Amino acid sequence: MNTPTKKHWKKALHEIIYEADTQAGKLFDIILFITIIASVVLVMLESVKSIDMRYHRIINTAEWFITILFSLEYIARIIVVKKPLKYITSFFGIVDLLSTAPKYISLLFGGVHALAALRALRLLRIFRILKLVRYLGASHTIIRALRASRVKISVFLFTVIIISIILGTIMYLVEGDDAGFTSIPASVYWCIVTLTTVGYGDISPTTPLGQFIASIVMILGYGIIAVPTGIVSAEYATQRKANKSKSPNIPLNSQSCANCMAEKHKDGAEFCYNCGHKLH
Amino acid sequence: MNTPTKKHWKKALHEIIYEADTQAGKLFDIILFITIIASVVLVMLESVKSIDMRYHRIINTAEWFITILFSLEYIARIIVVKKPLKYITSFFGIVDLLSTAPKYISLLFGGVHALAALRALRLLRIFRILKLVRYLGASHTIIRALRASRVKISVFLFTVIIISIILGTIMYLVEGDDAGFTSIPASVYWCIVTLTTVGYGDISPTTPLGQFIASIVMILGYGIIAVPTGIVSAEYATQRKANKSKSPNIPLNSQSCANCMAEKHKDGAEFCYNCGHKLH
Amino acid sequence: MNTPTKKHWKKALHEIIYEADTQAGKLFDIILFITIIASVVLVMLESVKSIDMRYHRIINTAEWFITILFSLEYIARIIVVKKPLKYITSFFGIVDLLSTAPKYISLLFGGVHALAALRALRLLRIFRILKLVRYLGASHTIIRALRASRVKISVFLFTVIIISIILGTIMYLVEGDDAGFTSIPASVYWCIVTLTTVGYGDISPTTPLGQFIASIVMILGYGIIAVPTGIVSAEYATQRKANKSKSPNIPLNSQSCANCMAEKHKDGAEFCYNCGHKLH
Amino acid sequence: MNTPTKKHWKKALHEIIYEADTQAGKLFDIILFITIIASVVLVMLESVKSIDMRYHRIINTAEWFITILFSLEYIARIIVVKKPLKYITSFFGIVDLLSTAPKYISLLFGGVHALAALRALRLLRIFRILKLVRYLGASHTIIRALRASRVKISVFLFTVIIISIILGTIMYLVEGDDAGFTSIPASVYWCIVTLTTVGYGDISPTTPLGQFIASIVMILGYGIIAVPTGIVSAEYATQRKANKSKSPNIPLNSQSCANCMAEKHKDGAEFCYNCGHKLH
Repeated sequence: MNTPTKKHWKKALHEIIYEADTQAGKLFDIILFITIIASVVLVMLESVKSIDMRYHRIINTAEWFITILFSLEYIARIIVVKKPLKYITSFFGIVDLLSTAPKYISLLFGGVHALAALRALRLLRIFRILKLVRYLGASHTIIRALRASRVKISVFLFTVIIISIILGTIMYLVEGDDAGFTSIPASVYWCIVTLTTVGYGDISPTTPLGQFIASIVMILGYGIIAVPTGIVSAEYATQRKANKSKSPNIPLNSQSCANCMAEKHKDGAEFCYNCGHKLH
Repeated sequence: MNTPTKKHWKKALHEIIYEADTQAGKLFDIILFITIIASVVLVMLESVKSIDMRYHRIINTAEWFITILFSLEYIARIIVVKKPLKYITSFFGIVDLLSTAPKYISLLFGGVHALAALRALRLLRIFRILKLVRYLGASHTIIRALRASRVKISVFLFTVIIISIILGTIMYLVEGDDAGFTSIPASVYWCIVTLTTVGYGDISPTTPLGQFIASIVMILGYGIIAVPTGIVSAEYATQRKANKSKSPNIPLNSQSCANCMAEKHKDGAEFCYNCGHKLH
Repeated sequence: MNTPTKKHWKKALHEIIYEADTQAGKLFDIILFITIIASVVLVMLESVKSIDMRYHRIINTAEWFITILFSLEYIARIIVVKKPLKYITSFFGIVDLLSTAPKYISLLFGGVHALAALRALRLLRIFRILKLVRYLGASHTIIRALRASRVKISVFLFTVIIISIILGTIMYLVEGDDAGFTSIPASVYWCIVTLTTVGYGDISPTTPLGQFIASIVMILGYGIIAVPTGIVSAEYATQRKANKSKSPNIPLNSQSCANCMAEKHKDGAEFCYNCGHKLH
Repeated sequence: MNTPTKKHWKKALHEIIYEADTQAGKLFDIILFITIIASVVLVMLESVKSIDMRYHRIINTAEWFITILFSLEYIARIIVVKKPLKYITSFFGIVDLLSTAPKYISLLFGGVHALAALRALRLLRIFRILKLVRYLGASHTIIRALRASRVKISVFLFTVIIISIILGTIMYLVEGDDAGFTSIPASVYWCIVTLTTVGYGDISPTTPLGQFIASIVMILGYGIIAVPTGIVSAEYATQRKANKSKSPNIPLNSQSCANCMAEKHKDGAEFCYNCGHKLH
């Protein structure tokens, strides 16, 4: 096998896997997308006892089929990419590994299905859903707005937690054990449930004073939800304005660099804007 | 019957049904509005067993009366409109058909009221409420804002679902069967209930670790509700600005074209802006 | 008694009741405020059986004391105002009458406390809380923003109701009687409880399909709450801008016209801007 | 001991405690942060009966260790600060005292652990969480936005309470005792639970009319949450704009004045901008 052919072969595969511009690339994306969804649905169905008991065979076979598909994809990605180690240690590299490994490991432990650790391991397969994140990325403005307001939102959430701890402790004192406020952690849990307007009702105040304090917590929660909303609204509006004035809509294509995996290259670009590596 | 008279007759009917500018047109609109509301209330009341048992006769008679009214309206619309097929296959055409057909079909099956499929069919009549959508349409700015932020809101909802699946699976592991987290789908359902701050309380965590994770889910849900709000706020503000600078408030009238059913013609317009058909 | 003195006396009383610029006027406002709060608390406490049984005597006496105070205020307002009939038929006139009348009417029916109609009548006293609305009025920008977005918010709420009716009917079909979805109205009620993220949990889906549809309803509710928020945000921002550019902060005083009860006169104004009546 | 040396020693300690620019100052901050978190976790765990029974000894020892640390910090702050009385009566002075005093007072009452007042006293230690507020302060724009919209938010919350009282009373009349609406305060509590979309479900309407009114309350609550959000969004956007145009990003340092405790001095400033006291 001579090197140019091999290179050509790798280049073609790279195009299929990492780009969505060609027909084959699009088909690959669609098949991957459907397989991911099917796989996650399988893991979910397997956890439903009545379904697992009746269709265990079918689910297991399908699971093996998907695992092998994902394994092939994982190997292909390692072969195609210039710096395999960088891919393997990247976010998507780990997710892709988690998508296949658990099934193989479960083989080693044979029939010991009841093992709790193994059960947890098998559920790791649900993280396959994260493979879908590759298809997102359309929301750069939102992410930039969230990043810009990161500190402010943290401060806000931190404040919510401080309020919950103090009001939770007060409710623990006021309500006591009867109404489910058995400890400070339980009361703080109740306070978070109430402040965020979730309101399960598994713990709820029964004394008039407790109900009065609870009313204050609710109105507080109803009011302060305005704070993160206000922050994100303002930051998002700013980001959108900045976006519009800056980018005069350069057409981008969907291919990614074989060397550093950077995306969003200008249409017609010959070299990667990030590492200078040749693109095609 | 000579054609001009017939044409005249059709034109008058068209004016009554499709326009709200004349006295007769307004009256028609008001009667239709009341009939729709009455009809929906009837369907709802019929489903209440105690009411249905006592007033079955009256409800059935009223239902027939309304069905015949709607049938006449449906036939009139088909006659009046230039391209009946276009109307019949349009959204409102289908809704108008659904408003009448179920009652007639129920006749065919006589006394077999218990048939589940038939019961579903009869409930289709509730879609009559969609006939009211004709009276909306005042909210163009909102719809444009929503359409402009369509992709972003989809990405957001998609993210919510991914978070729910992962956190739901973790809770399934942590809480186990006792607390109602009997399968991954059930746990994901719980996670959506919690993340959206609905909080039924039919499933709620009982272990300290479960309650801790639940608290994180709640605070997460409380925080990320800011994202769609921020998006819609910003888009809506933009749409409103664009709206104001563009339209110098041209008076529009409420009539619609007999040919293509386009609405919002300028006052005094002689031809449809959409298909060029003569309006009056 | 000669007329000028009487006029002088009426003017002084008018200043006390309708203006907050003088010392006496401020004192009157504070006493009225406290009396209203005390009165509402009394009505609320009276409804708590354990408290009513023990302190019936005290509550009754206090209630009579407050009723007489409010009666004197009502009579004073009628005397002082130029056009008593206009006041009596105004919003505050009716509220002021409701604050006193029920107690007197209860006298007529002596010991017949159990009468349901009478009980309802006595609870009318809770509307005394509306007397507090006089102290609000600081929120003109909000009210203008709400009024400007009135149509849009109505359309939004209307859409919420249409969605609730259709999804409620579907859930009635899917879940059936077992889970509390006993009739379409009950299912629509459940749908509103879920869509608005209240989530009592008194009715909640039990079948997988029902829980799936419920999840969609929740995510829908979580998403569309962004719509009214976006509208009010944008309108409010516009109102505030318009406000700032228009009003160069003219100092206003708190007196109101004796003839037409218009408020917010410019400081130093001699005649009512609304009816041209002399102010002092 | 000569005065210059003592002064030097005090200055060094002041730098460690009140500034985060030096290595020692940073270390002090980190240790304090961890101690506060550990301390709050301890108080929370102590309230969990099963944990307290098993680890009472360890928790008590750790508690004494933390109390002594906080005592030393408190004393050090008093010594270092120029005006000790001002510090002691300041917000953080009181919080710092509350962090240590309860443990010492509990000594006086020996074994009488069951005393309710003492239990409350010991829980005061939870306020140690407020020591963390020193680390916040990054959210000036939010606080200014909230302060600017203070009046409007108060008016809004006030309106929410008036609505709750009136609708609560109506529900008390409609639902009566059976469904948990036993008194007006209970009904008002229910109304707040519903209006703020918390929805415990401990009290929920059972009659059709009650459910109809409840639906209105929910949709109302779902709609008016837009008001505070709109206000805060608009105010926050304004504050941010004002912020940007005003401050050309002067670098600030983290030290605080030894005399008046003012913070945020310009880098390189020699004298306090607030009281003119020399900074180093």
